[in-house]
Amino acid sequence: MHDTQIFTDLNAATLCDGASAYGWIEGAAIVVQGSQIAWVGAAQDLPHTYHAWPRHSLQGRLVTPGLIDCHTHLVHGGNRAVEFEMRLNGASYEDIARAGGGIVSTVSATRAASHSDLLQDALPRVDAFIREGITTVEIKSGYGLDVDTELRMLRVARDIALQRPIRVKTSFLGAHAIPADYAGQAEAYLDDVCLPALRAAHAEGLVDAVDGFCEGIAFSPAQIARVFDEAQRLGLPVKLHAEQLSNLGGARLAAERRAMSADHLEYLDEGGVRAMAQAGTVAVILPGAFYTLREEHAPPIALLRQHGVPMALATDLNPGSSPMNSLLLAMNMGCTLFRMTPEEALRGVTCHAARALGLRDCGQIAAGMRADLAVWDVTHPAELCYRIGYNPLHTRLFGGLS
Amino acid sequence: MHDTQIFTDLNAATLCDGASAYGWIEGAAIVVQGSQIAWVGAAQDLPHTYHAWPRHSLQGRLVTPGLIDCHTHLVHGGNRAVEFEMRLNGASYEDIARAGGGIVSTVSATRAASHSDLLQDALPRVDAFIREGITTVEIKSGYGLDVDTELRMLRVARDIALQRPIRVKTSFLGAHAIPADYAGQAEAYLDDVCLPALRAAHAEGLVDAVDGFCEGIAFSPAQIARVFDEAQRLGLPVKLHAEQLSNLGGARLAAERRAMSADHLEYLDEGGVRAMAQAGTVAVILPGAFYTLREEHAPPIALLRQHGVPMALATDLNPGSSPMNSLLLAMNMGCTLFRMTPEEALRGVTCHAARALGLRDCGQIAAGMRADLAVWDVTHPAELCYRIGYNPLHTRLFGGLS
Ligand SMILES: [Zn+2]
Ligand SMILES: [Zn+2]
Repeated sequence: MHDTQIFTDLNAATLCDGASAYGWIEGAAIVVQGSQIAWVGAAQDLPHTYHAWPRHSLQGRLVTPGLIDCHTHLVHGGNRAVEFEMRLNGASYEDIARAGGGIVSTVSATRAASHSDLLQDALPRVDAFIREGITTVEIKSGYGLDVDTELRMLRVARDIALQRPIRVKTSFLGAHAIPADYAGQAEAYLDDVCLPALRAAHAEGLVDAVDGFCEGIAFSPAQIARVFDEAQRLGLPVKLHAEQLSNLGGARLAAERRAMSADHLEYLDEGGVRAMAQAGTVAVILPGAFYTLREEHAPPIALLRQHGVPMALATDLNPGSSPMNSLLLAMNMGCTLFRMTPEEALRGVTCHAARALGLRDCGQIAAGMRADLAVWDVTHPAELCYRIGYNPLHTRLFGGLS
Repeated sequence: MHDTQIFTDLNAATLCDGASAYGWIEGAAIVVQGSQIAWVGAAQDLPHTYHAWPRHSLQGRLVTPGLIDCHTHLVHGGNRAVEFEMRLNGASYEDIARAGGGIVSTVSATRAASHSDLLQDALPRVDAFIREGITTVEIKSGYGLDVDTELRMLRVARDIALQRPIRVKTSFLGAHAIPADYAGQAEAYLDDVCLPALRAAHAEGLVDAVDGFCEGIAFSPAQIARVFDEAQRLGLPVKLHAEQLSNLGGARLAAERRAMSADHLEYLDEGGVRAMAQAGTVAVILPGAFYTLREEHAPPIALLRQHGVPMALATDLNPGSSPMNSLLLAMNMGCTLFRMTPEEALRGVTCHAARALGLRDCGQIAAGMRADLAVWDVTHPAELCYRIGYNPLHTRLFGGLS
């Protein structure tokens, strides 16, 4: 029989639907058996079966589901600190491009990096997430833009889950950018590289979802539709970077294809919001890129709320537009920059993030869910959003193990 | 004789003036004797005297001076997470005031807290700073607004330096706000509370500098001048919260009084910049409050740069307008929101922060300085600003001790 752990003297933000904000249970107990939650409720209602087991007091701490970062590019080669500095020293985009900067530099560094290089570089970023109570992270490919490197990125993502106590969901993002050798030939890039890479990666079991970047500087809706067609043939769910810099109707396309999520959405219009609401597509809000790019057009949070579109929040951790390695900070920015409520922010990194990844076994504290839990040295769940650059994590449970 | 430590295989951002950006020394060695730096330079120039000592390889890491946060309110009672949430749930300022929110709630919580309460509450914030390589922190009073509590806050600040390996500089900030029982009677508050508290705190050796808040919602320049007069009688240096929400000429007053710093400065005009440049008053830039308040008027960084005003950067850690507990994040925000360069940001938390506190023995890596050092797992110093919510600290030396 599984080991049984009983946690008491805690307040739980279960994020389960119900009458109370945050799915709040004051004075809760949580029973963990093996890797699962067996029971949660008010401590005085703890079933008799569990009375014989020793109890671990959490001394009044807050317990939430383990956090989920549902949108990252955390596997990549190099960093862009020098480019960041050049820009602040007055370099133009042309200067930076001439110096080999921009996404091109990350593609070169990623192509040049071995599996082991990419893994060693990624692990400190993963460890920072683990220290923040993150138990599931999504990781995209998309800096290879050739078959070998796209597959290598995904293998590294899979390897991370073997090296560290964290769950990894992968997204194939071959349609991230058009590499220099295919400039002006997006269709040929799809035929020669992107779609073959997707098939090969799927054959190797490396792909949990298929993503794309629908934007003037990347791929058109018609080109993304080709990628989605292939995903559907392979039986893979889809998601999309949409409406970040302009409104091309990417979110509507995503909704038509029953995408799990459409992400960024700064330029989303009400038609797109309605389409997402009808399809049940999650809106993944990414304040790190908004902040770093000094974008002034915020995503339509009030419309998303009004139409009942579930909102997730993520770091978008990437070396260019969002070198952000803190999901707690993304929560603060979601509140401060976009006026999300602390409860929306917490749902955004738990239950709604799970949904954006197609996961039904995490993101809430409920019987039958994985015992992925975060224990915090705070009293009120809003403290997780209110503080800036402070990590109050006490303990993390990953599949029942601390 | 003092213990001698020789560090090699490192690159040093000394922040000393000279030809190279960051006071850069590639392939440096640093000699620490006791609590001081005895020598720094290119490793091949290491004097013969030191050749006999064993060397500690830092394996190519970056070394900077220990960081200095020159503006915090880190001793305070309670937090304002619930108020943060109320506002995001649509509460008006009146609603929040009626619920006892705003600075009033922090004053009540601080008055109600014992020395030990305040200390226990502050230490996790201090520990977070220590983990980021901070070796000196400034701490203000200003949430007591009565004689006893102002003194208690400063005693707690002094106690922090006994409890943790960090240097603390205190600022008396009795002129922070007008308490409810003196509403409309700022002068009486100064006579009855603020100036007597300053004298009593100074008599107890609790005051390193005297600060004030010059603003429509706080004290006028004429009232601040009375506080500065008293500081000068006591032989204490002054600094000022100035031009944060409007331009009352606080920076000019600060410059006239040879203040060590004027802080915030969002509404500073060119006349104020010139006055600060002539007086050698440091401009302390506080992006955390700008960000939290969603202020749109940025401090005049380009003018400050042009007139050669030294710029420091700090967290302004406080429970209301800047619950920011990361100086690295303040550096990123200084660059991202205000277009400071990474070198300006690093000077802002080292040599210029030291100057804002009147310290001449830290903030640079040079012979004779305290051996307060931060060793980072990064290659280029711009990485300290570029990343968002990531702490690459490897080791911190405080007075030569790790
Ligand atoms: Zn992305
Ligand atoms: Zn302040």
